[in-house]
Amino acid sequence: MLETLFEHLENRWEEMVEIRRYLHQHPEVSFKEYKTSKYIADFYRKLGIDVTTEVGGNGVIARVQGGKPGKTIGLRADFDALPIHDEKEVPYRSTVEGVMHACGHDGHTAALLILAKSINELKAELPGALVFIHQHAEEYAPGGAKSMVEAGCLEGVDAVFGTHLWATEPLGTIQHRVGPIMAAADRFEIIIQGAGGHGAQPHKTKDSIVAASQLVGTLQQIVSRRVNPIEPAVVTIGSFVAENAFNVIADTAKLAGTVRTFSEETRDFITSEMEKIIKGICLSADCSYTFTYDKGYPAVVNHQAETAHLIKAAKGVKGVDTIEESEMQMGGEDFAYYLQEVPGTFFFTGAKPEGVEQPYPHHHPKFDFDEKAMLVAACVLAKAAITYSE
Amino acid sequence: MLETLFEHLENRWEEMVEIRRYLHQHPEVSFKEYKTSKYIADFYRKLGIDVTTEVGGNGVIARVQGGKPGKTIGLRADFDALPIHDEKEVPYRSTVEGVMHACGHDGHTAALLILAKSINELKAELPGALVFIHQHAEEYAPGGAKSMVEAGCLEGVDAVFGTHLWATEPLGTIQHRVGPIMAAADRFEIIIQGAGGHGAQPHKTKDSIVAASQLVGTLQQIVSRRVNPIEPAVVTIGSFVAENAFNVIADTAKLAGTVRTFSEETRDFITSEMEKIIKGICLSADCSYTFTYDKGYPAVVNHQAETAHLIKAAKGVKGVDTIEESEMQMGGEDFAYYLQEVPGTFFFTGAKPEGVEQPYPHHHPKFDFDEKAMLVAACVLAKAAITYSE
Amino acid sequence: MLETLFEHLENRWEEMVEIRRYLHQHPEVSFKEYKTSKYIADFYRKLGIDVTTEVGGNGVIARVQGGKPGKTIGLRADFDALPIHDEKEVPYRSTVEGVMHACGHDGHTAALLILAKSINELKAELPGALVFIHQHAEEYAPGGAKSMVEAGCLEGVDAVFGTHLWATEPLGTIQHRVGPIMAAADRFEIIIQGAGGHGAQPHKTKDSIVAASQLVGTLQQIVSRRVNPIEPAVVTIGSFVAENAFNVIADTAKLAGTVRTFSEETRDFITSEMEKIIKGICLSADCSYTFTYDKGYPAVVNHQAETAHLIKAAKGVKGVDTIEESEMQMGGEDFAYYLQEVPGTFFFTGAKPEGVEQPYPHHHPKFDFDEKAMLVAACVLAKAAITYSE
Amino acid sequence: MLETLFEHLENRWEEMVEIRRYLHQHPEVSFKEYKTSKYIADFYRKLGIDVTTEVGGNGVIARVQGGKPGKTIGLRADFDALPIHDEKEVPYRSTVEGVMHACGHDGHTAALLILAKSINELKAELPGALVFIHQHAEEYAPGGAKSMVEAGCLEGVDAVFGTHLWATEPLGTIQHRVGPIMAAADRFEIIIQGAGGHGAQPHKTKDSIVAASQLVGTLQQIVSRRVNPIEPAVVTIGSFVAENAFNVIADTAKLAGTVRTFSEETRDFITSEMEKIIKGICLSADCSYTFTYDKGYPAVVNHQAETAHLIKAAKGVKGVDTIEESEMQMGGEDFAYYLQEVPGTFFFTGAKPEGVEQPYPHHHPKFDFDEKAMLVAACVLAKAAITYSE
Repeated sequence: MLETLFEHLENRWEEMVEIRRYLHQHPEVSFKEYKTSKYIADFYRKLGIDVTTEVGGNGVIARVQGGKPGKTIGLRADFDALPIHDEKEVPYRSTVEGVMHACGHDGHTAALLILAKSINELKAELPGALVFIHQHAEEYAPGGAKSMVEAGCLEGVDAVFGTHLWATEPLGTIQHRVGPIMAAADRFEIIIQGAGGHGAQPHKTKDSIVAASQLVGTLQQIVSRRVNPIEPAVVTIGSFVAENAFNVIADTAKLAGTVRTFSEETRDFITSEMEKIIKGICLSADCSYTFTYDKGYPAVVNHQAETAHLIKAAKGVKGVDTIEESEMQMGGEDFAYYLQEVPGTFFFTGAKPEGVEQPYPHHHPKFDFDEKAMLVAACVLAKAAITYSE
Repeated sequence: MLETLFEHLENRWEEMVEIRRYLHQHPEVSFKEYKTSKYIADFYRKLGIDVTTEVGGNGVIARVQGGKPGKTIGLRADFDALPIHDEKEVPYRSTVEGVMHACGHDGHTAALLILAKSINELKAELPGALVFIHQHAEEYAPGGAKSMVEAGCLEGVDAVFGTHLWATEPLGTIQHRVGPIMAAADRFEIIIQGAGGHGAQPHKTKDSIVAASQLVGTLQQIVSRRVNPIEPAVVTIGSFVAENAFNVIADTAKLAGTVRTFSEETRDFITSEMEKIIKGICLSADCSYTFTYDKGYPAVVNHQAETAHLIKAAKGVKGVDTIEESEMQMGGEDFAYYLQEVPGTFFFTGAKPEGVEQPYPHHHPKFDFDEKAMLVAACVLAKAAITYSE
Repeated sequence: MLETLFEHLENRWEEMVEIRRYLHQHPEVSFKEYKTSKYIADFYRKLGIDVTTEVGGNGVIARVQGGKPGKTIGLRADFDALPIHDEKEVPYRSTVEGVMHACGHDGHTAALLILAKSINELKAELPGALVFIHQHAEEYAPGGAKSMVEAGCLEGVDAVFGTHLWATEPLGTIQHRVGPIMAAADRFEIIIQGAGGHGAQPHKTKDSIVAASQLVGTLQQIVSRRVNPIEPAVVTIGSFVAENAFNVIADTAKLAGTVRTFSEETRDFITSEMEKIIKGICLSADCSYTFTYDKGYPAVVNHQAETAHLIKAAKGVKGVDTIEESEMQMGGEDFAYYLQEVPGTFFFTGAKPEGVEQPYPHHHPKFDFDEKAMLVAACVLAKAAITYSE
Repeated sequence: MLETLFEHLENRWEEMVEIRRYLHQHPEVSFKEYKTSKYIADFYRKLGIDVTTEVGGNGVIARVQGGKPGKTIGLRADFDALPIHDEKEVPYRSTVEGVMHACGHDGHTAALLILAKSINELKAELPGALVFIHQHAEEYAPGGAKSMVEAGCLEGVDAVFGTHLWATEPLGTIQHRVGPIMAAADRFEIIIQGAGGHGAQPHKTKDSIVAASQLVGTLQQIVSRRVNPIEPAVVTIGSFVAENAFNVIADTAKLAGTVRTFSEETRDFITSEMEKIIKGICLSADCSYTFTYDKGYPAVVNHQAETAHLIKAAKGVKGVDTIEESEMQMGGEDFAYYLQEVPGTFFFTGAKPEGVEQPYPHHHPKFDFDEKAMLVAACVLAKAAITYSE
C-alpha cells in the first residue's frame, strides 16, 4: 500500500503546491481563521470524508477509517497566519494587507490535505484509522491545541505525529529528538512602583528606573547561577518602559519578558526565583511591585517509542537523505498539549529554499520555503502513521 | 525717600494683587508671551516711562533716571507661565486651558510694575537710575535671560538684583546665600544601540536593555564615588524607553536625564565621566551609543558684596522678620546669566500661603502663594537698589 | 572465554578489595605517587607481565598480548589521591595525615590490576592485545594523561575505555553518553588595579572594589545572555580578595575563578567575552587590569561507535541492571586527552554505598563507595575490550 | 596683657620647638601614652601649676586661675602618635620603631604647654581661668575626649577652643567654619552568608561573592539617590574578602567600610538605608547576613558665636595673614564631644612646610609641618581665650 500511496502523493505534488499558494494568498491571523477553516472542511466534504468543524474554536477534524484492523493515529497540521506584512516578490504573495503565512503553516495544511485525499482512496488497505487534526491558532497563546484536545480531538487516538517545515535546514533532512524538543514559552510582566518627583531632588523620591535597572541585572543570575547548567533556560526582558520628561524622576517602570524552559520543575523554579529577586530588590529600593506570570505552551516532550518509530519510518523514504538528532529549540509549540494526552512525536522537515545560503528565518516578512518539502513531510507522516500498527 | 516709597507701595498693594490676578488669568507659556509682553509695555507707556520691547525676544526693559547722581541698578522679574492645567478653585484661576502661572512669575511681574510706578513718582530724589528687566521664558531652556543680556539689557548697569517668591518658606522670610545658590541644570540623552532578535535566542543578539540597565547602575558611581563629597551634584535618569513585544530582544534603549551641579569644573567633570562610563559599558556589551549633552542654565552664583548689601537692606524692612542663609537649591534659574555679566544677588522671598502647613510645591497644578509676599519683595528690592549708591 | 574470565574476576573480588584497601591506607597526592607507582609495577612484575614505568611521570603501562588476532585496546585507571584528611571511621582509613583517596581512584586501580591478572591467565584465547594504562595525577592540572600520551602510551592502541566509580549512582548502573560527557575545566585570575586612598575621599581614588564588584555582576551576562542556551557553561568567581583597613579605599582587587564548557568554540568564545567585559568595565572605572586564563583539561568527548559498543557490551553483564544515558557533568577529567588521540568512551559505574540514601560526594572527607562496584567495572571493561575485536 | 603675652610666646618659640622635637622622638600610640602623659604633668608640676592626671585614661588637665573676674575657657591639645614608621631624614626623627607623630599632635602639645607657662606668669592680669586639656587617644576610636568629658574635664568651663596644625595650608592661614566642620566617622562590617560548593555546580550553592558584589553596587545608591544632594556623605567599602580556591564557590563574603556624615539625622538615615539594602539583596540572593555598625566620633559642629569670636580674635595676630572659611572636612575628630557639652569652635592653623609645594599629607610616613605654625596657633588660642571674657 505504501508504494502506491507514495506514488499518489508524488503525482499530486502540484495540487499540493496549488493549495499551499491559495492559502498563502489568503492568510488569516490566529483565532480569526474562518475562511481557512471553511476551505479545509469543504475540501473534505467534496471527497465525502467525515469532517467535524468548530472543534475547540476554528479547528477541523477529518477521519478516515481503514479497512484493516489497527491503531488510530492522529496527524496534525496547523493553519493560522501571522500579523506580518508580506514583503516577498512572488506571484503567490499574500493579498491581505499586514497578514502573512510567515511560518509555513500553509505548507503543513496543503501536505495534510493531499495526504488525506490520497489515503482515502486506499483506505481499504489502511490498518486502523487516521484522524486529520487541522488546528487553528498555533501562533498565539493560549493556542488552539489545548481547546481542541479539550473538545475531544484525541478521543480514541493511540498516537499522534506532527512536523514543522524548517526553512533553516536543507531539503531531505528529518530532525527528531527524544524528550524535550521545544521549550515552554511563558510571558511575564513586572511593574515597579516607586515615587516620582523632581529630577533634582532624588532624596524625596523612590527612583523606579534605578530599581528596575538593578532588577534587570539581578535577574541574569537565575540562568547564570541558579538553574542547573545542563538545563537550558532563558529569561529575557524584552521591554523596559519608564517614559518621562528628562528632569522628572519616574514613579513607575514596566518590564515585560519571556521565560523559556524544558521542564516543569525548572519552569516553576524560575518563577519562584523571579518572585524572590523582585521582592528583594523592591525591598532594598523601598518600592512596591506587581508581578504577573502567564504560562504559555508547555515544553514539547517527545515520547521515546514514537520517536524511535518515526526514525525507523523516515528511513528509506524517497527524498530523505539525512536523519539526525535535532538540537533543543528554545521556541514554543502547542503540539505540547497533544503529547501530554497521547504518545507521539514532533519532528522537523528540512525546507531550506533551493540555492539559498542564508534563508530568511521564520516570522520574517520575506520568509519562504522549498515546496518540495511538503511532499517529504507527507510521505514521512504517512509511513509513520501506517506502519505504527505493525 | 524710602519711607515715602514704602508707603506708596503699601497703598498700592491692592493694585499689585489686581495685576497679578489679571496675569494669572491670562498666562502664556515660555517664548509665546506676546500679550503679557504687550501688557507690561503698555503699563509703562501709560506712565510715560521709557520702555524698550522685543529685547532678545519678548523681553521688555523700562528705565527710570533719578534726579541725583548714583549707580544704575537692574531689577529683574520674569513673566512666563507653564504648560500645566490650573486645578485651583479660585476666582482668578487661569482662563487658558492647560496653561498656568504655577511658579509665581505673575507675582514677580506685578511687584516690579508697581515698584516702577511708585519710584517713577519719586524719581527726583532717586540716586542713579533703575532698569526694570521684564524677562520672558525663564522656564524653558535656552531661556530669555541669555538673549536679553546679548541684546544689551545690562548696558550701563552696575549691579543687578532679583528674587523669587518661595511658597515653601513663611511670609516674612528672606533667604540669601553667597556663592552658588541655584544649580546648573543640564539635559542629556543616551541611545544604546544593540542588535535585536528573538527573545528565546539571546546569544544571537546584543541586548540593549541589559546594557542600558547596567549603565544606569554604573552612572550612580559618579555622585557616590567620583565627585568630591562636599560638592553637591545630581545625575538623574528620568526616562528609560525600550518598548518591544515581550518576546523580542530590544535593539535600542533610550535614556534621558538631567545633571545638576554648582561649578563649571564639576559640570565638565561629570560630562566626561559619563562619556567614559557609557563608552566602557558599551564596549563590555558590544553595543554602540550616541551621547548628547545639552548644557542648560549655568549655576546662579551670587556675589559676595551684593549679597552682604542685600542682607543689610533687608534688615528693618516692614514685614521682614527672618533673614537667613538659604540652602543650595538643586533647581535652575537663568538669572545666572546676569550674574556672569555684572555683580548682583538673587534671593528668595517667603510666600507660603497663610494657614497652610504643607503648601503645594512650585509647578504643581494647585500651586499658589501669599500675595502679601509681593509687597515684601518690592520693598526689599527697592531698598537694595536705592541704597546701593550710598 | 568471557564466562571463564567473569568467573575468575568474581572469585578474586576479595583480592581486589584487599588491594583497594591497601592503597586506601597508603594514599599519595598527584605527582607524588612514587610508592603507588612501584606497587603497581611490582604487581605486574610478579606475574611476569611486560611493564613500563615512569611513563610521562609516575605512569605505568602493562601489556598482555593475546593468542588470537585482534585489535589493541587500552584500559585506563588513575591512581592519585587528594590533599584531604580522611574522616571516615573504618579499619582501612588513610594512614597518611591530610591525604586521602576521596575520589575512588584506589578502586579503579584495584579493578584494573585484578582484571589484568585474570586476563593474563587466559591470554591464549585473547584476541589482539590489552594495554593497561595506570595513570598518575588526574586530580591536578596539567594532569598525567597528557604526558603519558606524549610518552607514547597509546602507540598501537586502536581504542580506549575508562570508567569512574560514581558514588552518587546505585550499584548496578552504567551511565554512558555520546559526545561531551565531562566539561573542560579552566582557571582564570583577574587583577583590577585602581588607585587607593583615604576612605573619606573617594574622589581622589579609583575604587577597585566597586569596579571588581561591577565586573562580577557583568560576567553573569556571559552565561545568561551570550552563550547559546542549549550549550551548558559555567563562569564562577570563586575568590574575591581586596583586604584593607575599613577606612582605606582598596587600590587592588583580585578575582579568581573557573570556567566550564563542553566545546572548544564556546570555551574560546567565553574567554574573549570575558576579556571584552573586563576591558569595558575597567575603562568605565578608569582602572587597569591583568587577566590570566589557564586552560585546564579539555572536555571529555566520547566517540559514537565506541559508546554504542560499550552499551552493547554492558548488556547482560552480571550485576548490571540499569544502562542509561548520563547527564553532562560539569566536572573535568583528563581522560579527555586519550579521546583526542584514539576512539573510545568514558563511562560511569554506579557505586553508591549500600543502604545509604545521601552518600557523601566525591572529594568529601567521608567519601566512600560500594566495593562491589569494582567487580562490575572490571567485568564491563573486560567485555568491552575483548568483544571490540569481533 | 596680650602684647606682653605675645612677646613671651615669641621669645619661647625655641623652647616650643625643643619640646615638640622631644615628643617627636618619643612618640606613643593611642591609649599607651604613659610617658607623654607623665612628661606633660611634670612640666606643670615644675611650674607649680595645679595639674590632674589620669583624667579619663591618660588625660591631663592643668588649671590657671586669673586675678581678674571672667569666664573659664578650655583649650585642648591632643598628644597621641600613630603606628606608622617614621621615614623622615631629620635629626628629630622618631626613635621608636613603627611609631610616629604623623599628625602634628606633638606640635599641639608643645604650643599649649608654652602657652600655659607664659600665661601662668601673667595670671594676675588674666580674667577668669584657663583649663589646659591635654587629651590622649584622638587617633583611635572611642578616643580620649569622651572619657575626659565624662571624667569632668569641662566642669565649670564656659567655652572651649581647639586647633589642628594643617600641613596642607600655608603658614599664616586660619580656617574656620560655623556648623559642621569635620565629619562623623563610623565603621561597619557586613558578613554575607551563602552556601558554598563546587565551582562547577552553582545551582547547588548560594554564591556569596555574587550577592556581596551586587550589594557593593546597590550601596552606591545611598549617596547618589537617597541622601539630600546638598548633604555631604560618603559610604566606602574598604575591604572585600571572600578567599577561596578558584574552583570553590564562596560561602561567606566579608565587607568592611566607613560612613562619613555631618548630621545625626543623615547618619541614622544612612544606617537604616544600609540595613534595608542589605536585607533586600540578601533576600533576593537567599543569603543571610550580619550587619554591625559602630558609631565613631560624631561630627565636629562649631558654635556660631564662638566661631565669630575666633575670627575676630585671629584678626591682627602677628603672623596671621589669611582668615577664611574652611571646607567641610570628611575626616573625623573627637573634639566633637567637647562641643556637645559647651560652646566652642575648632579651627585649622596653616602649617605647610616652607618651600614645599606638595607637602606630605597627614598620616604619611614623611609627614612634617612648619614649626612656626605652633607660635601662630598659641597666639590665636591665647587671644581667643583671654578676650572671650570681654
